[in-house]
Amino acid sequence: MYGEGSMLNSERPKLDRISAEVVCSADYERLAKDYIEDSALHYIQGGSGDERTLAENCAAFEAVQLYTRVLADCSGGTTAFELFGESYRHPIFFAPVAAQTLVHPNGELATARAAELMEACMVTSSLSAYSLEDIAAAAGGRKWFQFYFQTSREQSQALLARAEAAGYSAIVVTLDTPVQTLSRGAQRTGFSLPAHALPANLKNVVREPAINLTTDQSVVFQGAMAEAPKWSDLEWLRSQTQLPLLVKGVTHPDDALRCIDMGVDGLVVSNHGGRSLDGVAASLQLLPHVRAVVPEGYPLLIDGGIRSGSDVFKAIALGANAVMIGRPQLYALAVGGSLGVAHLMKILRDELEVSMALCGCSTLSEISASAIFTKI
Amino acid sequence: MYGEGSMLNSERPKLDRISAEVVCSADYERLAKDYIEDSALHYIQGGSGDERTLAENCAAFEAVQLYTRVLADCSGGTTAFELFGESYRHPIFFAPVAAQTLVHPNGELATARAAELMEACMVTSSLSAYSLEDIAAAAGGRKWFQFYFQTSREQSQALLARAEAAGYSAIVVTLDTPVQTLSRGAQRTGFSLPAHALPANLKNVVREPAINLTTDQSVVFQGAMAEAPKWSDLEWLRSQTQLPLLVKGVTHPDDALRCIDMGVDGLVVSNHGGRSLDGVAASLQLLPHVRAVVPEGYPLLIDGGIRSGSDVFKAIALGANAVMIGRPQLYALAVGGSLGVAHLMKILRDELEVSMALCGCSTLSEISASAIFTKI
Amino acid sequence: MYGEGSMLNSERPKLDRISAEVVCSADYERLAKDYIEDSALHYIQGGSGDERTLAENCAAFEAVQLYTRVLADCSGGTTAFELFGESYRHPIFFAPVAAQTLVHPNGELATARAAELMEACMVTSSLSAYSLEDIAAAAGGRKWFQFYFQTSREQSQALLARAEAAGYSAIVVTLDTPVQTLSRGAQRTGFSLPAHALPANLKNVVREPAINLTTDQSVVFQGAMAEAPKWSDLEWLRSQTQLPLLVKGVTHPDDALRCIDMGVDGLVVSNHGGRSLDGVAASLQLLPHVRAVVPEGYPLLIDGGIRSGSDVFKAIALGANAVMIGRPQLYALAVGGSLGVAHLMKILRDELEVSMALCGCSTLSEISASAIFTKI
Amino acid sequence: MYGEGSMLNSERPKLDRISAEVVCSADYERLAKDYIEDSALHYIQGGSGDERTLAENCAAFEAVQLYTRVLADCSGGTTAFELFGESYRHPIFFAPVAAQTLVHPNGELATARAAELMEACMVTSSLSAYSLEDIAAAAGGRKWFQFYFQTSREQSQALLARAEAAGYSAIVVTLDTPVQTLSRGAQRTGFSLPAHALPANLKNVVREPAINLTTDQSVVFQGAMAEAPKWSDLEWLRSQTQLPLLVKGVTHPDDALRCIDMGVDGLVVSNHGGRSLDGVAASLQLLPHVRAVVPEGYPLLIDGGIRSGSDVFKAIALGANAVMIGRPQLYALAVGGSLGVAHLMKILRDELEVSMALCGCSTLSEISASAIFTKI
Repeated sequence: MYGEGSMLNSERPKLDRISAEVVCSADYERLAKDYIEDSALHYIQGGSGDERTLAENCAAFEAVQLYTRVLADCSGGTTAFELFGESYRHPIFFAPVAAQTLVHPNGELATARAAELMEACMVTSSLSAYSLEDIAAAAGGRKWFQFYFQTSREQSQALLARAEAAGYSAIVVTLDTPVQTLSRGAQRTGFSLPAHALPANLKNVVREPAINLTTDQSVVFQGAMAEAPKWSDLEWLRSQTQLPLLVKGVTHPDDALRCIDMGVDGLVVSNHGGRSLDGVAASLQLLPHVRAVVPEGYPLLIDGGIRSGSDVFKAIALGANAVMIGRPQLYALAVGGSLGVAHLMKILRDELEVSMALCGCSTLSEISASAIFTKI
Repeated sequence: MYGEGSMLNSERPKLDRISAEVVCSADYERLAKDYIEDSALHYIQGGSGDERTLAENCAAFEAVQLYTRVLADCSGGTTAFELFGESYRHPIFFAPVAAQTLVHPNGELATARAAELMEACMVTSSLSAYSLEDIAAAAGGRKWFQFYFQTSREQSQALLARAEAAGYSAIVVTLDTPVQTLSRGAQRTGFSLPAHALPANLKNVVREPAINLTTDQSVVFQGAMAEAPKWSDLEWLRSQTQLPLLVKGVTHPDDALRCIDMGVDGLVVSNHGGRSLDGVAASLQLLPHVRAVVPEGYPLLIDGGIRSGSDVFKAIALGANAVMIGRPQLYALAVGGSLGVAHLMKILRDELEVSMALCGCSTLSEISASAIFTKI
Repeated sequence: MYGEGSMLNSERPKLDRISAEVVCSADYERLAKDYIEDSALHYIQGGSGDERTLAENCAAFEAVQLYTRVLADCSGGTTAFELFGESYRHPIFFAPVAAQTLVHPNGELATARAAELMEACMVTSSLSAYSLEDIAAAAGGRKWFQFYFQTSREQSQALLARAEAAGYSAIVVTLDTPVQTLSRGAQRTGFSLPAHALPANLKNVVREPAINLTTDQSVVFQGAMAEAPKWSDLEWLRSQTQLPLLVKGVTHPDDALRCIDMGVDGLVVSNHGGRSLDGVAASLQLLPHVRAVVPEGYPLLIDGGIRSGSDVFKAIALGANAVMIGRPQLYALAVGGSLGVAHLMKILRDELEVSMALCGCSTLSEISASAIFTKI
Repeated sequence: MYGEGSMLNSERPKLDRISAEVVCSADYERLAKDYIEDSALHYIQGGSGDERTLAENCAAFEAVQLYTRVLADCSGGTTAFELFGESYRHPIFFAPVAAQTLVHPNGELATARAAELMEACMVTSSLSAYSLEDIAAAAGGRKWFQFYFQTSREQSQALLARAEAAGYSAIVVTLDTPVQTLSRGAQRTGFSLPAHALPANLKNVVREPAINLTTDQSVVFQGAMAEAPKWSDLEWLRSQTQLPLLVKGVTHPDDALRCIDMGVDGLVVSNHGGRSLDGVAASLQLLPHVRAVVPEGYPLLIDGGIRSGSDVFKAIALGANAVMIGRPQLYALAVGGSLGVAHLMKILRDELEVSMALCGCSTLSEISASAIFTKI
């Protein structure tokens, strides 16, 4: 499957073209288990806790029903749109996914090449296994940088400066995992990142000494949460860059409003793919609550549970400007390398176009809640 | 099973009568897998995408609950009704199903004979494997013609003229598949129609050269949708025939109103049996939304998910004048040929009569929403 | 299991006491399949159509949630109540079930003895395998007679006269099956009643010649429904007896009102255990709709889906004066004969008492909708 | 698994540390079946009737969805809170569970040691297999006593006096099981408590002679309910102790109000873990109904269905001051003895802290209904 077969684990069967059996995103997920070793697969597939949010993220899309339209003239149709003054060919972005060499030796470089080929925007993770500069070089014209606050403002500033220098055109700061827990599956298998998948960008970072806790103190509150960013840190970050700044991981409308007050340019409604708190509502359920409070036209993105082009259509109908796909890119990367990722993106984009055409929408801005069926 | 056994694939067991085990539509579906080869069966059974609409079409009927009535005098009961000035013995029509020789050598001719025997209206597909004239000759007095816009107005006109000449009494133009995708199952098995099942009506049609797309253009928008019919085409079609004209594939109330404004005589609320956009609401869910906006008495038909006579009853109670059955006719045709199809229609009609009798309705016009149970 | 083992099919294992494994109604159902031959079991267990109503009858009880109460003084508690001037020890009646020798040679006689032992009211079916007089003799003081209209008024009158003479204290006329269909399972196995289970009461009845139908006529409408009782027949029946008259099979509130207008003394809200029209709402769902329209205190009974004493409690809380159990009595009869039926009734009655005690109700009249939990 | 391996049944595999596979409460339940003999396991796991309430208790937590918050300063966070003037480190209490030697020879003593280690409040059962004095000695500073009314006021007074003397700081009187039934599983296996698990506190109690019932009388109403406590008994109990008095087993808001009128200091909303009346609503569903009627700040606890720290969070968000865990402590006790129980409590407390941190709550009092997601 694809020419990059030579980069796959030698024990896996080599494939020299895309199998005719791969016709949708789920096919890549199904096949991926033959290309990713078990403990890594657990780590990638799993969600936190009982994995209810993980399941709800997908189920929420299934629950939305549509109306088709007849005879609409969509001959001038396009998926192109503008965001922050830049033009994008379609609204399906690659979510920031860390440590992509876990599933393929070319890792983020392969994904970046697929992004360029499919004119997709790649959001590079702070925790990428290749350096942000190398990825930027491979990704072509549409690329954003996902930022985690570092342990000191100097380190944060340095990382930001590198991202700007490398040509990333927007900064996405992820704020939904001040405390993180592995999925139970990954905990049980004792998963930890292998050396080849460690964050390339942070190799020379001097880690601050850990906080010493008394027995009365909590590793969560006096530990992780003491180190976690606060609103003042976001204010500082806003002052450090002229690039569009987005916050990823907002679920509550009140937080959305406070971010906007602070000058944030866009939000990614996200529950970290079910990897943050289990039990939080599905991204698609949260989206209209956030859309309802933000100013008209304010940029909202969403990730979590998007597995088809009609899911993209539904997200836009319910208020998203664009969407990000996470796990599916890893499955396609594992199975088919760069061309696998490109093929996946082509499937999703084609499905989005078909959904738009059958719902009578020539442009993304014509996709609205009037396409959503509501039971009498 | 039935006398036409000699026409069945010689490798399948011959049956000389209807097995006592066939007592409902689902029995034909169950048996059909022994009579239809796998790739064709996938093509017939499948729906688009994740097949949610396919499943919802049936589930929507299950969700509707009824009231029975006692002591009603139904001794003068009948399923007969009038539509467009013609009299029909019952409201269960054969939906236009293409390429019926896929499952039985006699194809549409066998179905047409069953329609005549059971006094059912047959809606002949443009894409029939036998010519529309031969089917018309076999179908007897009740027959409509399903029309697809051809690549030129001349070709459309010619097809329409043939249908009128052959005695079809109404034209049903299908508009819900300007872009079409095979089911994933059919894509994976690489299904394509065998030569014996190609459209007989279009044998000598000269296909227009395909549009040449630049790399910037989309096969969906600048390809298929550029060729797809527009509202002006429907206006033209309306001007070309005096026959009652119905539009098949309407789901949105606004489209219903616009069709009526254009002089369309009736609508078939349909999602193409779950073969158009996956995620569109079930036909039965859509029906009351459309009924709510059209003028009183305006003819509405429905297809999708009808598997029993009580489903027919429910569709009428929620606003349909008549219903169409699609896949079930193919299953019965595969298993029992012409008599299989007739037997299926007899089962459905008997079940409809029983439903009417137990709900105290002597005529179709007595079937109303008052028969629908709503939870307190 | 019980002393009547000698009457069981000799091929089945004899049991000389109630197994400790039988602790609820479902246990009898589970065991019954070893005591009833397959075709009869299909006939008994099955419902019409897709058996949705059959399933809903039970599911509706599961969906109702209760509040318990603390510290209530129920030391004077009792399940006794009055109906039509008669006193009953508890509100769990044996529904009229035909042909009980299908599962046990002693059939209705065994059930009648259990009814007497457990002070339960037995409603004898017109279609009993033993004569209504023999059953009356065995049943003791609490017995009603279930009446089907016969093919002539003379025959109806004669049957009624026999029931009155035998000491039955109320007449329950069943009106929900003017057209009947076997369950699909029973149709497929070609089930018909064996000679030993034919209606004993109707042995010497001269059957009227069947209606001759033309090919244009329907066996449902011009056949069965022509022979079916009409409102005028109910009026006539009302004039023929001084006994309390109940109508069984009412589901629609309008029919309830019309029965009351005609002088009917009580109603059994019933869908014939899911054996009439499939798709009709569950009995428990229908009950509050009927209760909402009838005069205060008007006697309502219910059958369908009752499998435990807490189900009895829920039915009463939602408006029933008493309940009837159908299939469970057959399962217990098959497994344990008369004592099996008595044991089942004891289980149900004990469960009802526990439900009352834990919900703080000393009498049936204290059971009200305030015991029903409704989600905020 | 843990050092107390030597106390485990010698036939079970000894473990000398906590297996890395135990990462959540469900893991202890899964493993427990290898450490508890079948009949005891049935007794512990089972609920009454069809076990619907048992299942609903857990399902109700799954149905609640949350909002996370970003950037909240939780560095001063704590799970500590005050109740009845006492300080507690966290709101996860050990519910009163009887007969703990069923699963581990050290029984309640092991649980008490875990409670002390984890600074958890232990609620000792009247029916403990070790004496309330021995347990008090092991439990450290936070301990309440669960009280059942004894057959005479003298005996009740004596039991109460012992609890006060042993240093228990609150009395929880359980009122939801005036009639009790074993689960069907336990009935079928004929489970009864072995000698080593009988109530140590009641060894020398002279049991009153049972009531003699006439055949007309009911073992439920004239038997158990005649012996069951009434409102006057609660009034008496209130007058007998200065300690905070809580009532456990309230589900109906009206009972809550009446308890408060009588001077009760707090309530435990509980359906006895699905072991009282089957069909009663889930504890979490009942909680907001009770919270809605009690005075602001009135202490409410809840048990039933709590299996994770996010469940604890949800209970507090919906109105609980603290929660109690029942079955999970037995599973952990069976698998790992005292350290197993401590480990379980640590998991739950850590999960609660993570939930608080991710939902932006520094203290229990900041957890409110605003954290609950409600669908538009």
